[in-house]
Formats: sequence, structure tokens, C-alpha cells
Amino acid sequence: MRYEDRIELTDNLSAKRLFELMAEKESNLSVAADLSDPNELVKLVENVGDEICLLKTHIDIVTDFTPELIDTLVDLKEKHKFMIFEDRKFADIGNTVKLQYSQGIYKIVDWADITNAHSVPGPGIIEGLREVGLDKGRGLLLLAEMSPEGNLAKGEYTKTSVQWAEEYDDFVIGFIGMKRLSDDPKFITMTPGVKLGGGGDGLRQQYNTPEKAIMDGSDVIIVGRGIYQADNQKQAAKDYRTAGWNAYLQREQ
Amino acid sequence: MRYEDRIELTDNLSAKRLFELMAEKESNLSVAADLSDPNELVKLVENVGDEICLLKTHIDIVTDFTPELIDTLVDLKEKHKFMIFEDRKFADIGNTVKLQYSQGIYKIVDWADITNAHSVPGPGIIEGLREVGLDKGRGLLLLAEMSPEGNLAKGEYTKTSVQWAEEYDDFVIGFIGMKRLSDDPKFITMTPGVKLGGGGDGLRQQYNTPEKAIMDGSDVIIVGRGIYQADNQKQAAKDYRTAGWNAYLQREQ
Repeated sequence: MRYEDRIELTDNLSAKRLFELMAEKESNLSVAADLSDPNELVKLVENVGDEICLLKTHIDIVTDFTPELIDTLVDLKEKHKFMIFEDRKFADIGNTVKLQYSQGIYKIVDWADITNAHSVPGPGIIEGLREVGLDKGRGLLLLAEMSPEGNLAKGEYTKTSVQWAEEYDDFVIGFIGMKRLSDDPKFITMTPGVKLGGGGDGLRQQYNTPEKAIMDGSDVIIVGRGIYQADNQKQAAKDYRTAGWNAYLQREQ
Repeated sequence: MRYEDRIELTDNLSAKRLFELMAEKESNLSVAADLSDPNELVKLVENVGDEICLLKTHIDIVTDFTPELIDTLVDLKEKHKFMIFEDRKFADIGNTVKLQYSQGIYKIVDWADITNAHSVPGPGIIEGLREVGLDKGRGLLLLAEMSPEGNLAKGEYTKTSVQWAEEYDDFVIGFIGMKRLSDDPKFITMTPGVKLGGGGDGLRQQYNTPEKAIMDGSDVIIVGRGIYQADNQKQAAKDYRTAGWNAYLQREQ
């Protein structure tokens, strides 16, 4: 199903907005902005903002973080029309993740349209985050699968994550996964570890190509080092955007 | 085996120091300082510092965090003789956790003797953290089990975590678990969700009593709301310390 036909299937505001944006902008590309230098981070976002539907951040790796950085990112989001996904990978009990999501230095719920959580702590993690995020129209992705070698998000673990997504489908908008995991097209699958040519790093990351991810039913390709380490970040983002979008058009023919 | 007899079994500096400290101070109590207000956090540590072997922090829930707070906590650590465990629950790929552990606002590796990680991303998470933490004498706990209802850290997941601890035993010093998980006494088991009287919260936390945890082979009881929400935090910490230590003496008779 095409992205625009899926808007009406979900009640979650962030999921609706993302489907809409992907269709309008003709992009299913997310850039993983895994940069510690705040100036490099902002420069990357300026370079790739027009090409992406979603900016994936790790706000807790930024050196000399200030709340003004968030203001800058939100300005760039409005200017270039993308959404923000803080890849926090919440992984604690409900009472703690509520605080981590809403309090502290980062106040993630105030600016991140989408965040994600591991399933390992049980459904209380979804309930805790939902208490904070639902009223603000936020959406949650469950890490139903992961990309690195030897990871344990598989089999029953993945199946249980999908069940919980269905159970809390006003807040859980989809999955981090390597392929489509649910037959219900309201759920969005995002695939990390995407790189043209595939391969790996020295710490067990395993790369997937854009075509493979999309043809396996993923909706959003997440590209990190393939773009932010490129000499020409803007051109690299254009190349990934084209690869991801063409694969999608081919799939939906 | 008594704590002091286990010092020589491990090569990890943080594990050695913790065994030593527990034996000297006659405390197997860790307080979970889950407070967002930095003044309340410091007051709690002043109140309970003499009773605990380990302060468990969630630095990312503290409002208006400043690096001076770390200095204050480290001063209190020297004064009251305890170690610090940042309960970060790292849960990402190796390349990302390296940055989260060493960079950003918190620079956790610079001040937390011990931190913890989920096993779900695979052994790359241990390798990434180890690259940053081992040379600084830090120790890692793997979340082999969790306390909340419906959690997925069980069965093969737990067994695999124990195997990885054995494989990386210069850096992995033990487990978050509800009971002893390895026959090797160099590993330290810490049990969260401990409360006199047991019970639960409204977000699927399930409490364990100090006696039950220690008799099941745990080494450190982690107590949060039972202490920080008490009218008299110091007295509550004394009560938990006595309960934990008496259970240990009874077990080791």
C-alpha cells in the first residue's frame, strides 16, 4: 500500500504526519545524525534536510549540548519539512522511562515526534512512555528486531513485540525491524544499518542495502555513516533518497 | 562465599573494590536515587551515604543538570565511601554506546565505577563499552533478568547473557538478576525492585523482599522508593542495610 493510502489507517498523529510527509516529499529516507560535534550536526541537517522525511538523533552523544541546539533543530525541521526521531532506545521500567522521556536535561517528549523503546522490560515500558507522550501526539517504535550480529531480538521476542504494538496501537506506530513484521499497514517499519554496498563495521554492525530493506517490506531506510561520513553529504543523501524511493515505487507497482 | 574471599577471583578493578568495600563497610545495600530534583538527590545521598556500598543513579532524569552535580556526588562518594553505578541500561550497537558512554553532556565513563547494558543488541554492545571503560577500571553489569511483569529477559536470553559475561569477564563483573545466575563467584548479582513487604507499583514493577533476594543468591539489593520516599531516609536505609546484611550472614553461615 502506498504511504498516502495508509494515513487514514492510524489514529496516531505522528504516524499520520509521517505518511503524509513521505508521500508529499517523495522521500522514505531517514538520516542517522550520529555526530558528537553540535556544529557538525547542524551542518549535516542543513545539508540533508531537503532530502529526508525523518531526522534520527542521538541527543545524548552531543558534546556541549544546550537547549538552543533543540531550537535550531526544530527551526530546521520547519524549514526543510521533516520529522524528528530521537533514537533513545528506552529500556527501563515504566516509572523510570516516564522520567527519562519527560525530565532531565533533554526533555525528549517536548521535541521528538517519534522515539523508540526496547521490549525487554515488558509492556510497562510502553505504558509509562504512553502516559507522557500520547497527549502530545507522539509516536513510539518498538525495537522488534536489530541489525548487529548476534542480537537477541528474534523469534518469540519479535513476535511478542508485534503483539504489544497491536495492543497499544494508539501510541505504538511501528517497529525497528529488518523487514515488514505485521500485516497491518498502519504500522511503519524502519530499518537501521542501511548502506549502499552493504558490509559491516568493526563492532558487529551488519549493513543492509536500501533496495533489500524496502523490498523486504520496510517503509523507512535509516542511513548513518553512508551519508554523514560522505565528502558530499547532500549528494549522498540524494543518492540514498533516490535508491529508497525507486525501490518503493517498484515494490508498489 | 564471603565477599572478602571473592576479591582475588576477579581481575576487574571495580569488582575488586566493591567486594572489599562491602566487606569493610558491612553493607550490601544500593540505593536507587531516582530523583529529578538535584537538591533532593544530594540530600538523599547525604542521608544514606554511610549505609550504602553503591549509589545507583539515573543521571538523565535530573532537572537542571550541571557538571558540578557530578563533582558533588564524587565528593560525597569519597566522604562516605561508596561506589557509583549509573543505571544507564545501554541498549544500542557498539559504535553508538561507545559515544553514549564517553561523550555528550554526561561523560558517564569519567565518573561511574559501574554501568549496565542490555544483552539484546548482541556482544557488540559489550565490545563497544569495553573499548572505552576497561582502561579506566570500570565494570559492566549485564541485564540478564529484569523485575517487571511480562519482561522478556528469561530463558535463552538470560543464558546467553551469562555466556557473554564469561566471555568478556575482564569487563563484565556480573548481572542484574533476581537470583544467582552463574556458579562462578567472581560475578556479582544485583537485584533491583527490592522493598520490605514486596508488592508492586501501577506500572508493572514487582517488588522482591531483601531476604528473598539475598537467599536466592543475589549479592547487592537495590532499593529505590522504599528509601527515597521514606519520611526518615537515613533510618529506612539503616533498616534495609540490616535486613540485607543479616540475610547475607545467614546465607554464609
